[in-house]
Amino acid sequence: MKLEQVSASRCFEGTQAVYRHASQATASPMRFAIFLPPQAATARVPVLYWLSGLTCTEENFVVKAGAQRVAAELGVALVAPDTSPRGLKLPGDRDDWDLGEGAGFYVDATCLPWSAHYRMYSYVSEELPELVAASFPVDAARAGIFGHSMGGHGALVIGLRNPSRFRSISAFSPIASSMRCAWGEKALTTYIGDDRTQWRDYDATALIEDHGWSGPPLLVDQGAADPFLDAQLRPELLEEACARRSVPLVCHRRDGYDHSYHFIATFIESQLRFHAKYLA
Amino acid sequence: MKLEQVSASRCFEGTQAVYRHASQATASPMRFAIFLPPQAATARVPVLYWLSGLTCTEENFVVKAGAQRVAAELGVALVAPDTSPRGLKLPGDRDDWDLGEGAGFYVDATCLPWSAHYRMYSYVSEELPELVAASFPVDAARAGIFGHSMGGHGALVIGLRNPSRFRSISAFSPIASSMRCAWGEKALTTYIGDDRTQWRDYDATALIEDHGWSGPPLLVDQGAADPFLDAQLRPELLEEACARRSVPLVCHRRDGYDHSYHFIATFIESQLRFHAKYLA
Repeated sequence: MKLEQVSASRCFEGTQAVYRHASQATASPMRFAIFLPPQAATARVPVLYWLSGLTCTEENFVVKAGAQRVAAELGVALVAPDTSPRGLKLPGDRDDWDLGEGAGFYVDATCLPWSAHYRMYSYVSEELPELVAASFPVDAARAGIFGHSMGGHGALVIGLRNPSRFRSISAFSPIASSMRCAWGEKALTTYIGDDRTQWRDYDATALIEDHGWSGPPLLVDQGAADPFLDAQLRPELLEEACARRSVPLVCHRRDGYDHSYHFIATFIESQLRFHAKYLA
Repeated sequence: MKLEQVSASRCFEGTQAVYRHASQATASPMRFAIFLPPQAATARVPVLYWLSGLTCTEENFVVKAGAQRVAAELGVALVAPDTSPRGLKLPGDRDDWDLGEGAGFYVDATCLPWSAHYRMYSYVSEELPELVAASFPVDAARAGIFGHSMGGHGALVIGLRNPSRFRSISAFSPIASSMRCAWGEKALTTYIGDDRTQWRDYDATALIEDHGWSGPPLLVDQGAADPFLDAQLRPELLEEACARRSVPLVCHRRDGYDHSYHFIATFIESQLRFHAKYLA
């Protein structure tokens, strides 16, 4: 669990850093970015985990979302892991942009050759929070989780399955039902296998259908001009499941906005303030 | 001068776009990014030109600085050109990261093989503002200029030499005296030649020494932990020249901050508000 600092820059009077460590969950080196707000110099602060989308590394959110300004004001730490193990050279792990490297899908793979390493569910839900709590001045009891696209799916799935670990959950443009879109079907078939009953624990909509949700409201921002909206993201499936199970969900459809970080940057402040309410 | 849109995304209720065009100044295709704030839907808005540093394209500022949020509030357009022509395959134009592609230094080259294309001074001071004014709802009479590192040098030089074109000038971590640092000496020798008297028009400190300045105060933000501070940037030279010529200069040394966009993002709001005062 030893941490090695890759970089650190002062940012909004706090520190934006990247660390590398040997992960037990993925049996590989992993990187994550962490922003510590100025308040962390004198007290343990709440912490928000951000999960990125397909092809991203730990860097995208850090440089593109503009989250540090608001996090510094609110006194919240931000942790952004990479989206998969890297450099393993497993067969096929770099052939497709939507599978293998950059596409861990936040599952624990059970199929070969992925099962020894592609265990991003365990990494994000257990190992990373424990490592962060042990290494930085954050208050693990006040943690939330959010993310974008594949990472929105990851945030919903990991948040819904770990209510004792994460108090608040939100997402930008999430893959609302991984079982019912091409990206998710490809990933789940490859990592988990053909038995679709095994997929439901990695599908936000199925989790709501199967277990409901008694935590705080879920928040989703979705660009109405997102080119992946109808075929891959399908927020209406999550809305229908939430309605059936009386789960409070606020899903904003934002006119004219696409799938890019320009959309995320525009609404990151409102999502950060949403989480801060529950992490205070 | 025909413009081709490369991309466009809604961003803070405005539009962040990238365009490509055939430049006369550089006799090559050029790209620039433009953010139009929501106010541009109904009126001509002031415009701020951002010049980026070594190795950057038109993209860096757009995705990393977090400027659009404040520009949308202030109703200011942001234009960020690339830092050189690209794809020409001139001898040596991609051998070094600090010369040729990504390193136009905002000069009009007079030496071969650069002189036909490396004319970023004319591009930024004349062609681009005229193209932007003719193509977008901006008010060319209310323009300012700023930039970072090599682009801070460019903003100071182009702003000081074109007071009728740019009302306000600021810089992050500028190369304060291009004649007196290794980056600048290499670029000026290569692009302009060995006669150092020809360099003074491309040196912000020399321009102040030679001509003074009767425009509004100059604003500089400089990270005190910037690794390039002492050898390349040398803001004290600009401060000394301004003091001698009674030119108002505010130079903030920001404790702990480095040369990265994390530094820029932290103080971009205060520089944007500085310009807005003069562009109102």
